[in-house]
Amino acid sequence: MDTKIYTLAQKIDNDIKNNTLSEEEKDRLAKELKQLLPDDAIVLAQTNPTSGDIKGNAKKALKWIQWAQRLEVGAIVFPEMYLIGYPIGDFIDRFPLIVEENIEWLKALATKVEGKTKVVIGFVEFNKEKTGKNYYNSIAVLCNGKIERVIRKTLLPNYAEFNDYRHFEPSEIDSKNRITDINGQKAGIIVCEDGWNDFDFFEKNLYKNDPVKSVVEEQKPNYLINCSSSITRAKKEQLKHNMLGFAAKKYNTPIVYVNQTGSGECLSFEGASRVYNKKGELIARAKSYQEQFFIVSPSKGGEIIALPDGLEKTLNEQKAFTLDHEPDLERTYLTIVQSIRDYFQKTGFKRAVLGLSGGLDSTVSAVLLADALGAENVFGISMPSKITSSESKNDARELANNLGINFTEISIKDMFDSTRTKFDEVFSSIEKVWDGRYKESFTNDNIQARSRALILWGIANEFGSCLPIATSDKSELYMGYATINGDMSGGFAPLADVSKTKLFALARWLNKHRKVKNAIPESIIAKRPGAELAINPKTGKPLLAEEALMPYEFLDEVIWRVENLQQTIGDMMQAEFLHEKHMKEQNQPISQEQKLEWLQKFFRRMSTALYKWFIMPPSPIVDARSINKSEYRQPIISSKINYQKTSFEEKLEELK
Amino acid sequence: MDTKIYTLAQKIDNDIKNNTLSEEEKDRLAKELKQLLPDDAIVLAQTNPTSGDIKGNAKKALKWIQWAQRLEVGAIVFPEMYLIGYPIGDFIDRFPLIVEENIEWLKALATKVEGKTKVVIGFVEFNKEKTGKNYYNSIAVLCNGKIERVIRKTLLPNYAEFNDYRHFEPSEIDSKNRITDINGQKAGIIVCEDGWNDFDFFEKNLYKNDPVKSVVEEQKPNYLINCSSSITRAKKEQLKHNMLGFAAKKYNTPIVYVNQTGSGECLSFEGASRVYNKKGELIARAKSYQEQFFIVSPSKGGEIIALPDGLEKTLNEQKAFTLDHEPDLERTYLTIVQSIRDYFQKTGFKRAVLGLSGGLDSTVSAVLLADALGAENVFGISMPSKITSSESKNDARELANNLGINFTEISIKDMFDSTRTKFDEVFSSIEKVWDGRYKESFTNDNIQARSRALILWGIANEFGSCLPIATSDKSELYMGYATINGDMSGGFAPLADVSKTKLFALARWLNKHRKVKNAIPESIIAKRPGAELAINPKTGKPLLAEEALMPYEFLDEVIWRVENLQQTIGDMMQAEFLHEKHMKEQNQPISQEQKLEWLQKFFRRMSTALYKWFIMPPSPIVDARSINKSEYRQPIISSKINYQKTSFEEKLEELK
Repeated sequence: MDTKIYTLAQKIDNDIKNNTLSEEEKDRLAKELKQLLPDDAIVLAQTNPTSGDIKGNAKKALKWIQWAQRLEVGAIVFPEMYLIGYPIGDFIDRFPLIVEENIEWLKALATKVEGKTKVVIGFVEFNKEKTGKNYYNSIAVLCNGKIERVIRKTLLPNYAEFNDYRHFEPSEIDSKNRITDINGQKAGIIVCEDGWNDFDFFEKNLYKNDPVKSVVEEQKPNYLINCSSSITRAKKEQLKHNMLGFAAKKYNTPIVYVNQTGSGECLSFEGASRVYNKKGELIARAKSYQEQFFIVSPSKGGEIIALPDGLEKTLNEQKAFTLDHEPDLERTYLTIVQSIRDYFQKTGFKRAVLGLSGGLDSTVSAVLLADALGAENVFGISMPSKITSSESKNDARELANNLGINFTEISIKDMFDSTRTKFDEVFSSIEKVWDGRYKESFTNDNIQARSRALILWGIANEFGSCLPIATSDKSELYMGYATINGDMSGGFAPLADVSKTKLFALARWLNKHRKVKNAIPESIIAKRPGAELAINPKTGKPLLAEEALMPYEFLDEVIWRVENLQQTIGDMMQAEFLHEKHMKEQNQPISQEQKLEWLQKFFRRMSTALYKWFIMPPSPIVDARSINKSEYRQPIISSKINYQKTSFEEKLEELK
Repeated sequence: MDTKIYTLAQKIDNDIKNNTLSEEEKDRLAKELKQLLPDDAIVLAQTNPTSGDIKGNAKKALKWIQWAQRLEVGAIVFPEMYLIGYPIGDFIDRFPLIVEENIEWLKALATKVEGKTKVVIGFVEFNKEKTGKNYYNSIAVLCNGKIERVIRKTLLPNYAEFNDYRHFEPSEIDSKNRITDINGQKAGIIVCEDGWNDFDFFEKNLYKNDPVKSVVEEQKPNYLINCSSSITRAKKEQLKHNMLGFAAKKYNTPIVYVNQTGSGECLSFEGASRVYNKKGELIARAKSYQEQFFIVSPSKGGEIIALPDGLEKTLNEQKAFTLDHEPDLERTYLTIVQSIRDYFQKTGFKRAVLGLSGGLDSTVSAVLLADALGAENVFGISMPSKITSSESKNDARELANNLGINFTEISIKDMFDSTRTKFDEVFSSIEKVWDGRYKESFTNDNIQARSRALILWGIANEFGSCLPIATSDKSELYMGYATINGDMSGGFAPLADVSKTKLFALARWLNKHRKVKNAIPESIIAKRPGAELAINPKTGKPLLAEEALMPYEFLDEVIWRVENLQQTIGDMMQAEFLHEKHMKEQNQPISQEQKLEWLQKFFRRMSTALYKWFIMPPSPIVDARSINKSEYRQPIISSKINYQKTSFEEKLEELK
């Protein structure tokens, strides 16, 4: 297609967002653009809806629709569930009014649909049959003031972050009803997961039927449209790309794929809507992590916009752990920045306050917050205790300067002292009647972490639109190495799905790729992580995290193997870890006893960390799998699970 | 059946729990009991498994099985999922080893099965087909050292607290395979939800097929066995009773129903296993809220043990709100006490520490903790600030004395002062660059609540096996009237599903029905609730909760209507509330404006409270519906939902 189309379409994007054009300018732009468009042009409305804000979503849709109508394209296509906003959690079960309202808004929108442009848009429908769940996950085709047809989703995902089958009744495929005429061509409509069950592509399939096959074989459409709300995860893009291309080629039928963008609480959508031709080749792809009024021709294609690094990786790599996080850092950065921005915007907050310890977690958090909210909307507070080194304080200050965020320093020494005095008083009362007082406890460590959180939440109470930030990272959360009501407390936790080794890589990446280079002082990246909450009696210096836990290089591979390969102790004892390889190369081989001890420690600590996962604040899902409660829940009471296989003989022995 | 059976069976219960009998005594008891048993006697193993603790569950099962074998009964029947422990959350998806191990343990158990006694027991099975979910929710019949057959669940609930379809593939009904010979009779086995889809009983059905109908009509069994894990909720027992009796009568077939007991994190199982005869009459029922080795005869019956009040209410009452919580208080009490006891036991804790404010929430919490853990394992801390009245301090002390729990008092004044000093310092730095400092804020209120939580968590850090308790109640959680890292922070939240009006009734009930009468000082029940965190400038006295929110009588009915009738603002404006009726009777009618204001305030506050629900600690589900995240999740970002219907014209106007 003519590249001028994309230049002109950008003006539409800009107008939709900022109302930049007068009616006259709009008409002139439309006229110019119309002449360039191919006969089968349609618009992919890559949009960012807000859960439950039906009025807002409808009003936004109208702007997009009106532009499509001005261009007289055959259709404008919105993502799955656009009108009600995705994700929905369980709110439609408790408030059927919301579904009633989304249907009324759909009808109201239909009155605005005129001319040759159809509107294809996701909404939620009632199931009025006597049997089945209360709702359908549906797509409406609006045409000439009316609802022309409604297509109901057949395959309802119900794993990880998906909860479709909790609320929706699966529909028969009804291939004939899925066909609508667009620009004189037959377009077949499928809904997200409907397109993910090819029996030749997947080794194992979740469902028994395949809507793509039925629609193509029974109706022979000119092309397929897939309306989706599909989140970004490490290495998912390549799977999606391979699968869509495979199906287009297999059926000799182009596939138009429309995906939501923006973030909803813990879920982030990357957009990157696209078109595959009937050879299975990618011929158009929209931007990632932003809304786009994207004009495509199902037969001729459109612009192909490059993906962020990390959206494109081979499928095979999924099976191997690597410490080279480089290829996924751009995607990680964009996912978290979008998540912060949308979480704040959709909940009505605009400013963030966080503790700056001079350590890696708070440092990277500060950079991401500054980029998401604007440096002026971030306040970094250095809150030294008597253990805090002057290096840490200087690092925090330097970072804030480099980022241009607001900064102040306040000692927590007095708060610590008055708390400790009270603790001594109350502990001495209690030990008169209760035994079991620890000789060494984490009490002092935690007073520091909790005093800091007390200050951050106090600031949020005192100043409008302000959220405190929890800075815990994924490696620490697995180990329970985070303080309840301390560093793991906040309104949002940007790093909860980023492991420590990846954080180091991300810090270097940020220094290299942000507009302001090297904002993160090298000394922060170079120092070994430690909470500076206690002194290690062996070294006389602040206790390092790896002394308390295990080498991060090893820990992060354990996490990866648990999440991606579902391995437990026995499997991992068989495998060679990168850390083992590296230490062998340095002539400091890890013994099998040491390895087993670390693995047992991992599962022991994980078992007692389940409670902390339960009360973690919202955080963006970034990795292929996570411990985010939007996708994974393990009962806190399951702490007695044995993650090490026992033999049949041992079992018989236990039953004697 | 002979009542002596139950007396002797109690000795078995006691032996299973406490190993009270020698081998010789066991043989003697078995011999005596065997002579009394009818030909078709079977044992219902009403047990309390622990999630994931397969070894523990298997070893416990063996004790039960060996007793059944001694009695030479035809079968011993365990609940659904017994071996792996229910609930499972998502752990089988991440750790298939756990499923492998539960199968190996099943095989190991089978080697112990001998003689005429079969074992019917729930476990998780792999689905090895190329299509479908990875697992089946299955029941094994063990016989003579072997697995005789496996029955797979067909109907997989996936709503509220149920997540079956997340993990399990639905099975064909396969009625022939569901029949096993027990005592020369044909028993048909169904699994929990399999028995909940009668097309004549329910107005609306979730599934298209009915395993009960298929098994009965195709196989004509002598009786049905339903293996269940079904939680207790307000007014659920009557529905269950009606449905099971209905099906037994309709099919002229006795139904034996085995239910789990004990609590798993947020879910509580009431046990109360039972038998209905072919006329649909209840002829046997086990104890509630405890394990029981329960001997029944499907044709002749067994003991019928009374239910706790509140397990039995008519179905119609479900549709009407009442302030008479009396009939549900015993069930509420037993549910929460069991939940606390099992949560502590299953996570390895034994002691609790809580703040005693002299208010209702902490008071009722203390009573329940004392009854669940033993008074000696509870420490109540009075933590007065300068706002705390001497009455409150005295009430707290008197309560502790009456309960016999440990008690101490410690002022938070110094902690408050040192924190406030630091706050002043940091706030003045911040307001130099940020606008929006509130003239009136909750900062001081929250310093108090958070300083108290700091002390409680400090005690938990310093003393072994100790959990701090969050005391927030359901009414306050809906309103967000609870402090993050303050009163809503703790290891467990016993009252999070109990509304304030019910708490008042529960306090009176406790005073009347506990062994020690009137442990709760009347002055605590008589005073109007208030957090004593701030002074109301209008009255010069501590601000009352109803001044900050709305009358609890009204608020609790709103909650009930939202949860049970799915009502929103329009529906509720049409209804007459009890509070309206009462105020009218007192010649102080509530205006429609006032009512609308309260309703709008309710939804406004609820929308901003969603974040607090997200980070709430585990708590027992008690009511028919709840905001517990085990059953209900609403995205935090859905705060823009409009809970008030708008007209079509208004919508068109918005789209102009």
